[in-house]
Parts: sequence; C-alpha cells; structure tokens
Amino acid sequence: MRRAVDLNCDCGEGFGPYALGDDAAMLDVVSSASVACGFHAGDPQIMAETFAAAARKGVALGAHPGYPDLWGFGRRPQRFTLSEIERLCAYQIGAAQGVAALAGTRVLYVKPHGALSNLAMAETDVARALARAVRAVDARLGFLAVAASALEREARALGLPTAAEIYADRGYGEDGLLAPRGAPGAVLCGARRIAERAATMVEEGAIVTLSGRRIPTAIDSVCVHGDHPEAVEAARLLRRRLEAAGVSVRPFAVPAA
Amino acid sequence: MRRAVDLNCDCGEGFGPYALGDDAAMLDVVSSASVACGFHAGDPQIMAETFAAAARKGVALGAHPGYPDLWGFGRRPQRFTLSEIERLCAYQIGAAQGVAALAGTRVLYVKPHGALSNLAMAETDVARALARAVRAVDARLGFLAVAASALEREARALGLPTAAEIYADRGYGEDGLLAPRGAPGAVLCGARRIAERAATMVEEGAIVTLSGRRIPTAIDSVCVHGDHPEAVEAARLLRRRLEAAGVSVRPFAVPAA
Amino acid sequence: MRRAVDLNCDCGEGFGPYALGDDAAMLDVVSSASVACGFHAGDPQIMAETFAAAARKGVALGAHPGYPDLWGFGRRPQRFTLSEIERLCAYQIGAAQGVAALAGTRVLYVKPHGALSNLAMAETDVARALARAVRAVDARLGFLAVAASALEREARALGLPTAAEIYADRGYGEDGLLAPRGAPGAVLCGARRIAERAATMVEEGAIVTLSGRRIPTAIDSVCVHGDHPEAVEAARLLRRRLEAAGVSVRPFAVPAA
Amino acid sequence: MRRAVDLNCDCGEGFGPYALGDDAAMLDVVSSASVACGFHAGDPQIMAETFAAAARKGVALGAHPGYPDLWGFGRRPQRFTLSEIERLCAYQIGAAQGVAALAGTRVLYVKPHGALSNLAMAETDVARALARAVRAVDARLGFLAVAASALEREARALGLPTAAEIYADRGYGEDGLLAPRGAPGAVLCGARRIAERAATMVEEGAIVTLSGRRIPTAIDSVCVHGDHPEAVEAARLLRRRLEAAGVSVRPFAVPAA
Repeated sequence: MRRAVDLNCDCGEGFGPYALGDDAAMLDVVSSASVACGFHAGDPQIMAETFAAAARKGVALGAHPGYPDLWGFGRRPQRFTLSEIERLCAYQIGAAQGVAALAGTRVLYVKPHGALSNLAMAETDVARALARAVRAVDARLGFLAVAASALEREARALGLPTAAEIYADRGYGEDGLLAPRGAPGAVLCGARRIAERAATMVEEGAIVTLSGRRIPTAIDSVCVHGDHPEAVEAARLLRRRLEAAGVSVRPFAVPAA
Repeated sequence: MRRAVDLNCDCGEGFGPYALGDDAAMLDVVSSASVACGFHAGDPQIMAETFAAAARKGVALGAHPGYPDLWGFGRRPQRFTLSEIERLCAYQIGAAQGVAALAGTRVLYVKPHGALSNLAMAETDVARALARAVRAVDARLGFLAVAASALEREARALGLPTAAEIYADRGYGEDGLLAPRGAPGAVLCGARRIAERAATMVEEGAIVTLSGRRIPTAIDSVCVHGDHPEAVEAARLLRRRLEAAGVSVRPFAVPAA
Repeated sequence: MRRAVDLNCDCGEGFGPYALGDDAAMLDVVSSASVACGFHAGDPQIMAETFAAAARKGVALGAHPGYPDLWGFGRRPQRFTLSEIERLCAYQIGAAQGVAALAGTRVLYVKPHGALSNLAMAETDVARALARAVRAVDARLGFLAVAASALEREARALGLPTAAEIYADRGYGEDGLLAPRGAPGAVLCGARRIAERAATMVEEGAIVTLSGRRIPTAIDSVCVHGDHPEAVEAARLLRRRLEAAGVSVRPFAVPAA
Repeated sequence: MRRAVDLNCDCGEGFGPYALGDDAAMLDVVSSASVACGFHAGDPQIMAETFAAAARKGVALGAHPGYPDLWGFGRRPQRFTLSEIERLCAYQIGAAQGVAALAGTRVLYVKPHGALSNLAMAETDVARALARAVRAVDARLGFLAVAASALEREARALGLPTAAEIYADRGYGEDGLLAPRGAPGAVLCGARRIAERAATMVEEGAIVTLSGRRIPTAIDSVCVHGDHPEAVEAARLLRRRLEAAGVSVRPFAVPAA
C-alpha cells in the first residue's frame, strides 16, 4: 500500500462578487488546489487571493483551465478545434503563472476543468492537445489527470510529470470512467460514505465502480469538489481516515530545482 | 543624433471573426509589435497567429494589456483599484507569455493600452502599479512607455529596461502630453505629414507640440497606430525617411541572455 | 401619514452557477422586485425563474438595468456617452420584457442599478437619458427613482409614473444623498435598527440623515438590498412594523388597463 | 411563377470598434434585415444605428438571435437545454424590440443565427423551442425559416406568420439541406453565379442541389450573407435579375394593423 497520497480540490471558482464553495476551509485540508483561470470561473482578483492563501498554507498550486463559458461554468459541451484548445489552455496557464508571480508564488501543475476535461478523458487527440499546451508553456509543470483516462496516457506519453486522480464524490461506471453528471449515482452523498469509498480506493489501488467492482489503477491524488455541499466535511474525514491508516497527505507536484 | 530607433505598432487587435488594421503589412515595416491580450481585444487564436507571424519576420513581441472592455476597445475610462490594475496586468502578461511559448517565441516587453495607459501617463500610483506588475512577472521584460510621462518615470524608477515612445499619428499639447482623443488636432492626417513630423521628433530628440514648440526628451521608439487609416503608408514613409537619414530601425527590446 | 407604501428589493442578481442573496425569502416579504437584466448580473435562465417566482407570489416586477460589468457587479464607474446609456438601458428593459413574456408575466417598472444609478442621481442629463429610454420602450412603465434625486425629477418631468424610494440599509449624508459605499456610515448594520429607521422615514415622510436631521420628501417605496447579510430579517421586521402602524405594503406599479 | 419575393441579409454583425460586411450598401438592396442582438455579434449602439438606417430605407427589421458566443460568432456548436434556448431567444428578441423602440421603429420578424439555426433545422424540439419563444414574446412576429426544414414546419405548426428562405450563397446537399460550412461546395463563389442560381430557385419554386437536382419547395425569401466577399454585388445582380423577370422584391413581414 502507498505511504502518501495527494488530496486536491478546485478553488477560486467564484467571479467578481460571487463565491462558490468554502475555499478557506478546504485549503486547510487539501495538499493541492486547482485554481480557475478566468474562463469558466475566477478573475485576476480572486486568483491572486486564492494563490496567496494557498501559499500561506503550504498548498501546492495548479492552474485549472476550462472553456470560455462563465454562464455554463465550463460544463457545457462546446466544439473547439484542437488548435483552439491548445491555445486557450496555454493562455490560461500563462495567465495563472503571471498572477501567481505577482502573488509571490508559483503554479506547479495543470488540471483541465469540466466539459473540456470530460472530452479529453475520452478523446486521445484532445488529451494530447492539452498535454502539448502544458509542455509548451513549461515542460516541468505537473499534469493532474483523471486516472486510467486518455488524459493520463497522453500526459505520460509526452513526458509530463503526471499524477492520476480519482474523484471522491463521483460515481464510476463499469468501464472505470466517471458516470456523467445527471446519470444515477453520478454524484455521491454523505460525507462519511464519500470518505470511506475514497480511502478504500487509495488503499486498494483500484477504482471502485457503482456495482462495487475493483479496477486496479495507479492513484496519486484524490479530488474532492469544492462546490459539493459536504465537500469540507468529506475532505476532513478522508484526510483523518488516511492518516490513521498511515497514509500521509502531501502534494504530488514539487517545485523544480 | 541617435543612430537607431524602434518603430512599434499595436497588433492582433481583432477578435474572433473581426480584424482591425492590416497586421501583415505593418509587421513588414515595424521592429516591435504590441499584441492585445484578450481584454480590450485579441483572443488566444489571434494572439498565437500574430506571435508566429511577428517571430517569422523578426519583429520583437510585446504584451499590450488593457481594461476588460471589448465593447469599448479598452478606451472607456473605468475605475479599478491599484490592486486590480496590478492583477489584471499580470494576468494578461502571463497569458501572452503562455501563448507565445506555444507559438515558439517570447514576449520581450509590455506596453499598456488605451484608457489604462492614459490614466497611467498622468497618475503616478497607477504607473507604479503597472511597473510593479511587469517586474513581478519578469523583471527582465522591457517597458514601452509614453515619453516624458509618469509611466516612463515609474518604470525607470523600478529598474525595468524602459523605452520612451512618441506617437507618430497623435497631436501633443503644450504640456508635452498627448492631446486627448476627440480634442482638435488629437489625431493627425496625411501619411507624409505624419512621417515627417515623427522623423523630426526622432532627429531633434524632442516632442513637437501642436503649436510647433520643441520639448526635448529621450525618444527610443515611435508608435504608429495600426487602426489609423493611413498607418501602413505612414509607417513605410517614416522608416524610409529615417533610414535615408542614417537612422536604422530596430527593436529596443532584446532577449535576455 | 400615508396608508400604504411599496417595499422593494433587487432580485435575480446571480449568474450561471452563482447566487446572491435569498430571493425566495425576500419575495415573501417585498411587494416589488427589481430583476437584474444580464449586464451587471442575471442571465436569461435566472431572469425567467425569478420572474415566475415573483408572479406566483404577487410581487410586481421591475427591470433593473446596469452597466455591462459582471466582474464589478455594475458598481464600477465607467464612462459611457448619453446615447450609449439610453441604448444599453433600452436593450436591457426590452430583454426583461421578452423573458417576462415567456415566463407568462410582465415588467411593470424600471429601476437603474449601481454606478449607473449613482451617476444619474447627481447628473441631470444622465437621469434624463435613462428616463427617455424607459419612455421610448413603453411610456406606461413605472420608474423607481432615488427620492429627491435628479432621477426622480427627470422621470417626473418626462411624465413617467414615478415612485420615490429610500434605502433602508444605507446612510444618508446631510445633503439628503446616499453616502457613497465605503464612506463611514454608508451601510447600516442591525436588522432592528434598519427597520426602525426606515419606518420612521416612511411615517415622517422625510429622509433621516446620518446626523439625525429630517429632510422632508415624498416616499413611495423602501428598498432593502437583497445582498445585505441581514436583508431578509430587516425586511420582515420593517413590514411587520409598518403594518402594525396601519401602513399596508403594496406595489407602487400596477398593470396598465 | 411568384410575382414577389423577399430579399434578406444579416446586418449589424459588428461589435464595438469592429464592423463586418457593408451594411450601408446591403440596406440599399435588400427588403429585410436580420439584426444581430448582442450574443453572437452586435451591441446596443450598433443595433440602434442599424435599426435607424434600415427604417430610413424602408427595410423590414428582424431580430437575429444566436448563441452567447462572440468569440465564435455563434457558429460554434454548444449544448443548451430547450429551456435555455427558449429563454436566450426571448431575451434577445425583447432586447431588439427595446432598442428598436428607442430608434423609432419596430422588429417585424425573427430569424435564428448560425449554430443555433443549424441545430434547429434538423431537430424538431429545438425548432419548436425557438418558435415557442417567438410566439410568447409576440405572436404577430414573423418567422424567417430555412425552407423545408424543421424550423419552417414548427413555426407554421405554432401558427406564426412564417416565410421560407433559401440561401443564395450556400450549396444544398441532395437531401435539400444546406451543405455544412467546410464541406465542398458549401459556399458558392462568383456574384453572377450566385445571383443566377438564386433567381432560378425563385422562378422554379425549387431548391437546386449541388448536383443540379430540383426539390420543389415554397420560397418566400432569399438570403444573401452580408459577410460574403461578393455579397453586395451578388445581391444587386439578383435583385436586377428578378425585377427584369417581373418579380418584385419586397418585405415578407408587414406591421400588424
């Protein structure tokens, strides 16, 4: 069994006067924070404050690029060309790096968001476009990819420091892929149940499907969605549960020398 | 008299299906191109294509951040806090660096746009906020500042590699500042007249005001607005005129070792 | 003393996944709801749902147009021409009418938002531009204007059915104008104190300034800001307090025959 | 053979400082103008000016709603729910009515744009959602629908005054549907050829496919795209050609009594 795992959440997903989730509480629990970059959520002000708060708490920072779709929170499928996808990711990663530098810290990894990530989980050429964009901006950036997806394969194939993540609060189909939002069992309820299942997956090194089947896979990180109503409680329980079992929680991405 | 001067224009100021100015023609004439970063104009697609075209032609690349105001092209005065100004600039500079890296090239300098630049010409604290943002993102980035303005003073005070620019197609008041758009004489007409006056300013090392008075000042670069109807013609005439007088046209910003 | 007064709040000021304030609770208390129209907040989805909820509860509906500034929630001063102001208001009022028709209800009045309203309180020509826009779209629309402001004067001068409102949760300077946000005393605290002062103003037919001075003025409506943390409690207390004193709460705007 | 036909084009498809197509010239030739409503293109300023110009020239005005996608000009497929589609259309139609009222004129019909229209041509429930939105806002509004599409069927089924249009500059597949942009033959070249084929379709009351086959269908209007490089020339030739054959060009939509 592994001795350490990363715990990540999405952060900074407000906009202007709006907030989403309890970032302050989550940043006390997780080891990595994926920060929205202004396209599906986030603005320079929120980004700078989220970066600064994460840095103060020793949380590793990721850029969390998404579709340009504030209205739909980047969860609305849209058709972009591969070249557009590369460029809108490079734009957002760079933007995050610029604001992080101003906030006195650094972006250590990239994790794609929402409908963009969903598409890239299944489509190899989209996954590769994302990985290419990351590598072009800075080949030392980590890549946080859905475990056992095209994203993980392509990021590894391009030589990026890649971590595979499972989702604590989402159901998995029998194919090992995330059940689509809206499908039965797609979003789990109950902080205790969420924490328990995630800990099981980490300890067994396997995805647990909705039917209870195990699909062995590398697991480097566990994602808890910041906008889930029980997110903070589930994350706290999970961290406690893991640490009690001798698994320490720490960032997968570390600053390059 | 100086032996070399930079010739700069704004580029990539279209958006989606829209174009503004004749970038291809301008990139054959100027030595530096300030590229819109998606807030007042520009999108990741246009940025990448403009960066690639400039790189092919040996034109030095600048980030050209502005207010988030596509409707008003960043020329509409808005009230932002100093902290917001720092952050929205760092965001755009970083975004430009990200897309430039993907396009296989680099951003060498920063020049603020429109109403943001106008404000910073006169207000020391805004000028300093801009310079701070640039220095935080990368202290080796050049700063292209309106000659004899607060922008030039603050950029130099913070130790940024600073170039002072005059505007070929804009009138200067008796205080040496740009006449505001809309005021009489604010926008010059006639490619020949524009080129002639700009060459005079470079050769004499002085701003020539609307009344013809000379105000001596350092001049490192001349800006020709890409959206001026006679921009290309004026830029060509100016370049020819300068070269005939033994002044070579070359970028003020050079890649750091 | 007057026998009836309107109680209004801003509603539908979320965007996409974001909510602001507790609209459902407020719609149980107020008699009029001013609904954001998509520029400073609101989207077609939120507008339609807010319209439908208000209609179910017998709350009169207003369009609440603001600057195109989602990031700044329309509170950031921007410079628009009078013609732009007229047009962006007509656009938003019409949009609200279109969505209201789809939701099976009607817009009965208009109230400008944020920095646009602040400007129009003081500047006669801006106030007149707003009133002109309302009259052009539908001369039977009511106009909800800050009491004793240029907005009230110009709306009355153009013959619009005009109601004068005071702000329950905002402090008034000695000139009878709202103290600007950020100034000491600009935002009141304490639901009981807010309700008490507002009831006093209604009963005395006078603005009560920060120093306690009375400035007599017509008061047709009281605004409670939906995003104030004690908004719902203050509105409930105020309504109870008014009704106990024999003042009924009902909409100022009624459908034209 | 019919004695009259409508000639329509898209207008007002610029944004802020950007223009697209030669609206002034087109408004001298067409009988109906479909004006962008601020989502895929257009802003309140451009809308007002386009409305006023069309009214001066006796051109009938339509609202031309599209997806909220300025970057992609509304041509990028996106996934919206039927309820979102209804509401974003009602929003834009109302907005157009508001600005038209301010400009002293009226919207007489609606025509959907780009990817939204493409989807509705084929999908009955999307077509019905669009028709429902129009009927809810004002049941007397005309509906300009792609000939022989689900749009035409559903608009007629809901009792809207419906006109069927063919596209002068687009190729038709053997199924009578528009060849998708990007497919061979999708966009026709040559003003003369465009005019000739369109006139043939009007005169024969049939769609002419890429292979030359005739598919008989009602044709009430011919669309010439304003952003096609030969749009103005093609429209002029077509109008002249039709009038020479005794077919007058006039709006399909007329103000309700």
